[in-house]
Amino acid sequence: MEPIELRGDERLDYLLAEDLRIIQSPSVFSFSLDAVLLARFAYMPIRRGKVVDLCAGNGAIPLFLSARTSADIIAVELQEQLADMASRSIAYNQLDQQITMLCDDVIGIAAKIGFDQYDVVTCNPPYFKAYENSEQNQKEPLTIARHEVKLTLDQAVRSASELLKQGGKAAFVHRPGRLLDIITSMRANRLEPKRIQFIYPKEGKEANTLLIEGTKDGKPDLKILPPLYVYQSDGTYTEEVRQLLYGTEE
Amino acid sequence: MEPIELRGDERLDYLLAEDLRIIQSPSVFSFSLDAVLLARFAYMPIRRGKVVDLCAGNGAIPLFLSARTSADIIAVELQEQLADMASRSIAYNQLDQQITMLCDDVIGIAAKIGFDQYDVVTCNPPYFKAYENSEQNQKEPLTIARHEVKLTLDQAVRSASELLKQGGKAAFVHRPGRLLDIITSMRANRLEPKRIQFIYPKEGKEANTLLIEGTKDGKPDLKILPPLYVYQSDGTYTEEVRQLLYGTEE
Repeated sequence: MEPIELRGDERLDYLLAEDLRIIQSPSVFSFSLDAVLLARFAYMPIRRGKVVDLCAGNGAIPLFLSARTSADIIAVELQEQLADMASRSIAYNQLDQQITMLCDDVIGIAAKIGFDQYDVVTCNPPYFKAYENSEQNQKEPLTIARHEVKLTLDQAVRSASELLKQGGKAAFVHRPGRLLDIITSMRANRLEPKRIQFIYPKEGKEANTLLIEGTKDGKPDLKILPPLYVYQSDGTYTEEVRQLLYGTEE
Repeated sequence: MEPIELRGDERLDYLLAEDLRIIQSPSVFSFSLDAVLLARFAYMPIRRGKVVDLCAGNGAIPLFLSARTSADIIAVELQEQLADMASRSIAYNQLDQQITMLCDDVIGIAAKIGFDQYDVVTCNPPYFKAYENSEQNQKEPLTIARHEVKLTLDQAVRSASELLKQGGKAAFVHRPGRLLDIITSMRANRLEPKRIQFIYPKEGKEANTLLIEGTKDGKPDLKILPPLYVYQSDGTYTEEVRQLLYGTEE
């Protein structure tokens, strides 16, 4: 293995199911189950193609995707500290040939890396609205990652669409409360929603996560996939989520 | 019991869970599980209020609703033959005081029975697009009930909105493939979607039915309710659906 430099409260965590490792930092950024779910949900060419992950954070989604495809992956993250963590994880896993980390703004990224030429775009955007007079520290990495301080949902969707070739697919993860916003934005940006899956924390509860995939200039034909439950009634992970996280049966 | 006249291939079926009976006709119209699901899903005032059911068919939804509320219910059905079946079922169940059957067009109905004054509107509209050169017989009762020959989704949503007071609720049942259309139409007609439930034929299958409720001039705050499954893996009804249909446990 490559030598690795960890900084501050960073630690080297396992992506168990993929036999990879990833640098995380409790105070700066750790990936969530949502990233794992999106990386599993998104359509992925097996051998060839060009994939972009927007709002890449510490690189969890591109790392997960590298286990599903031999396609070239470009990861875009605005925050230097997170992009740097991602770059070191990519190097540690010897994936520099497949994954290119860009520290750049998602807004306008197609003008830099190319319009209308990618097969798939994935994006786990900031979930929460930014409020001008909120007490959030709008410079905090966690605030920027979670709130629409530097990037709105609509801007993320637009960038995804600009990158994609006709027939290319964009997959997003978000909160169900924003379903109407994301559908409206996708359609306004030539991304026709084709597959939606709702994630429920457990049986009998409302959905708390939304996965949605659209095709650029696709025809209307929406499927609602079977629901996915995260926890069993005893509080342990369901078999499906356990497989995603650990790659093993109980 | 009242005497009842059955015509042609009509029969007097049971609404078991509600201890009511309903006239059905295999060749003209029989209510589906979707009507039962909508009647259970819709918000319903318990004691007082004014409710309208649009596209009432043979009256299954108003009959079901009469078991959930003492509110006055107006049922609107364009087709004379269906409205007549509904009227006779209402009389047979001695519900004439609560349910008023109107044989009229859903388009423009608010101009006849009043704008902005109803608490709840339910609607199980025709599901399928009408195509001009299709081989459907566009005068057949089943075609009119199932296809958008006489009423489009957008027209149904508009009529629901016109009837409702501010804060009133409209509930629809439709196919998941029309989710984007119904959401777009609801928002364009001041009905903010608040609750969605997807119905799955069984575990592991895609959803085949959509229930959606919106509030007139409501604030955005969408919940995705727990999924409902119709059949168990052995092909028998799930407990939840059995309760809806028969009101009894296995």
